[in-house]
Amino acid sequence: MAFSTNICYACSTNQTLTRIASMSETKKVCIVGSGNWGSAIAKIVGNNVQKHDYLDNRVTMHVHEEVLDGKKLTEIINETHENVKYLPGHKLPANVLAVPDIVDAAKDADVLIFVVPHQFIRGLCKSMLGKIKSTAVGLSLIKGFDRAEGGGIELISHIIQSELNIPVSVLMGANLAPEVANEMFCETTIGCKDKTIGNLFRDIIQTDYFRVVVVDDVDTVEVCGALKNIVACGAGFVDGLGLGDNTKAAVIRLGLMEMIKFAEVFYPGSKLSTFFESCGVADLITTCYGGRNRKVSEAFVRTKKTIKELEDEMLNGQKLQGPFTAEEVNYMLKSKGMEDRFPLFTAIHKICVGELPPEQMVDCIRQHPEHMIC
Amino acid sequence: MAFSTNICYACSTNQTLTRIASMSETKKVCIVGSGNWGSAIAKIVGNNVQKHDYLDNRVTMHVHEEVLDGKKLTEIINETHENVKYLPGHKLPANVLAVPDIVDAAKDADVLIFVVPHQFIRGLCKSMLGKIKSTAVGLSLIKGFDRAEGGGIELISHIIQSELNIPVSVLMGANLAPEVANEMFCETTIGCKDKTIGNLFRDIIQTDYFRVVVVDDVDTVEVCGALKNIVACGAGFVDGLGLGDNTKAAVIRLGLMEMIKFAEVFYPGSKLSTFFESCGVADLITTCYGGRNRKVSEAFVRTKKTIKELEDEMLNGQKLQGPFTAEEVNYMLKSKGMEDRFPLFTAIHKICVGELPPEQMVDCIRQHPEHMIC
Repeated sequence: MAFSTNICYACSTNQTLTRIASMSETKKVCIVGSGNWGSAIAKIVGNNVQKHDYLDNRVTMHVHEEVLDGKKLTEIINETHENVKYLPGHKLPANVLAVPDIVDAAKDADVLIFVVPHQFIRGLCKSMLGKIKSTAVGLSLIKGFDRAEGGGIELISHIIQSELNIPVSVLMGANLAPEVANEMFCETTIGCKDKTIGNLFRDIIQTDYFRVVVVDDVDTVEVCGALKNIVACGAGFVDGLGLGDNTKAAVIRLGLMEMIKFAEVFYPGSKLSTFFESCGVADLITTCYGGRNRKVSEAFVRTKKTIKELEDEMLNGQKLQGPFTAEEVNYMLKSKGMEDRFPLFTAIHKICVGELPPEQMVDCIRQHPEHMIC
Repeated sequence: MAFSTNICYACSTNQTLTRIASMSETKKVCIVGSGNWGSAIAKIVGNNVQKHDYLDNRVTMHVHEEVLDGKKLTEIINETHENVKYLPGHKLPANVLAVPDIVDAAKDADVLIFVVPHQFIRGLCKSMLGKIKSTAVGLSLIKGFDRAEGGGIELISHIIQSELNIPVSVLMGANLAPEVANEMFCETTIGCKDKTIGNLFRDIIQTDYFRVVVVDDVDTVEVCGALKNIVACGAGFVDGLGLGDNTKAAVIRLGLMEMIKFAEVFYPGSKLSTFFESCGVADLITTCYGGRNRKVSEAFVRTKKTIKELEDEMLNGQKLQGPFTAEEVNYMLKSKGMEDRFPLFTAIHKICVGELPPEQMVDCIRQHPEHMIC
C-alpha cells in the first residue's frame, strides 16, 4: 500500500483543453443509460456543456426504448424534457436528446458516460464495437463488479476498456440520485489517470452543488464502489441482531480495513488517501446507514427468509449487489487461501448463503488481523 | 502529514512485563473516576487484573462521595458491588474498591486511569501532586480539550502530564458506556509511545468483547476524540435542515478532512492511518448519527433557540462539548489567520454563536480547499 497522496488536477490550467478546442471540432458527449442516476447526470451534463465553448451543445442520451401508454419513452423525453419513468418531476435541459439506438447515440461522441445496470454492459459494448470514434474516452458511473470468466471479479471499467479499446475513467461517491436531481449539495470522486481528460470530466460534471475531486487512483475508486455493498450487509446484520452503535461502528471500520487490504492485495499501488474521498468513507457511511443492501440484510436476520426470497419480495426480483459481490470476492479469497485475512468479508458471504448463522458474525471478527498487525 | 503506519505492539513478547513483575511488587491499578464510563471500565479492569500474576488483585476506584437515601455511595458500591447511581444494573467485580479520598485511592498505584469530566482534572491533579508514585503511568479516557491559559486548546493528557510529571497515554474509540457495560462487541484505540507500557495497558483493558489497537500517535488519538464533536454539530445542522444523506456524508467527510488538516498543522508528525482506527472514523460515525451534539444541533435548527437554552432544557444545564470545542478551535484558527483553511469548523462555530444562519453552512463549504488541493 503506497501512502502517497493522490495527484490533484484542480489547479492546473485549462491550456491543454483550450488547445484541444482550437485544434478540433467541439467535443460531443453521449450518456449511455437513462435510469434515475443517468437522468440526474444528464441534467448536470446538459447544463454544463453550455458553459464551455469547446463542448458541443448537444448531448445524446441512449434510452432503451419502452412504450408508455402507447407512446415511446424517447418521444416523451424529447417532447416534454422529462424522463417520466425514471426521474419524474425533473426537467432535463432541452439540449439533451434521447436516442433509442446505441450506435446513433454514441457514434460521434468524444466522451461516453456509461450509466447502465452492470449486467447490460457487455452487450452494449458489443453493439458499439467498431462503430464509435477510436479517440473517444469513457467515464463509468457503474458500481459493482462483474463476474470474470472462470470466476472471481472484474472491474466494469476494465470490461469497457478491453471491449471497446478506449481509456475508461470512473466516477463514484455518496450520490443518491434523487438528491442529486434535487440539487442538494454533495461530493463525488473521479478516478482518472490522465490530467487533461480529468479536467475535461470536471468541466462536464462539476456544479456548485455537485463537487468533484479528481484522483489518479482509478481502480481503488471503483473497488470502493463495489466492496462497500458487502460491508453494508454486515451493517444490516448488526441492525437485525440489535447489536448497537459500538458494534456497528466496529463492523463498518473493520469492513473499511478489509476494503483497504483487498485493494492493497489485488490492485497494487492503491493509495490510502483515496479511501478518505467521497467514493470511500462517505459512500460507505451512507450505504451502511441507508441503502437497500443494509435494509434487506436487516430483514434477512429478522425474518429468517433467504436472500433470494427477500429479493423477490422487497426488490421485485432484482439481484442484491452485496451478496453477489461477497460471493465473487470469496471465490477469489478462497482460491488464494486468503479467507483468514478477510474474516468479515468471509463471514458475510457465509451468512448470505446460509452456511453461518448471523449470530456468529461477531465471533468471526473478535480476533481480527487488525487487532494483531505485525 | 506523515503517511507511515503506526507501530504495532500486538505481537511483541511479554518478556519485559514478566521481568518487571519478577523484579518488583505486583502492579497496582487505580481508576480516577466512577461515572458510567469509569464504572464500565472498572468492570473490565477488575476482571482483567485477576488474569495476570504481575497485576495486583485489588483495584481502587476514586468515587466523588455522595449520599443516597442517607447512605454513602462508596459504602453502597463496596457492599453491593454496584454503582447504583451511574451504572445501575451492572455488578462490578468484588476486587474493585470504591475510595472517597483521591490520595488514598491513588497513592500506591502504578497505573492511574483518568476518567472524570474534563473540568475536574486540574483540581484532582493538584490534590494528587507529590502524593503519588513518581514511577506511575497514566491513561486518560477523557474526551475533549480544555481551555489553555490565554485561549486556545490544551489536550487533557498534556495537562495531566505537566501537572503530575508522569507519562500519560490515551484511550479513545466508538465506546458508548452502556453498550460496553453490556459486553457488546466494540473496538478502542490506545495511543501510547512506549511499547512496554502499551502492552501493560492492553493487558489491563482488552477483553474478547472490547478489542484494543495500540498506536504510538498519541496526540492524534486524543485530537480525534475532541474534534469529532464539532463535526457532529455540523451533522446535526444537516439533519435539522433536512438536507439529506448525500449532504450529511459530505459534511462528515469534509469534517474528517479538517480533523486531519488540524492534526497536521498543530500536531506535526500526525499519521493518516490513525484516522482509520476506532478513535477516528468509527467514533466520528457514531457521534454524527447518535450522540448529544448531533441531537442538540438538530434541535438548534428546528427550534431557533440558543445553544445555551437547549443545554438548559435538554442537558440539565450541562455544557455541550461541540460548540465549546468549536469556539476554542476557532480562537486558534483566527489568531493564526487560518479560518479559510477550515471553512466547516469556522462555519459551525459561527452558527453556534449566532453569527451565521445554519442555512448558510453549505455555502461555506461549496468551494472547500479539499475540492481544489494543489
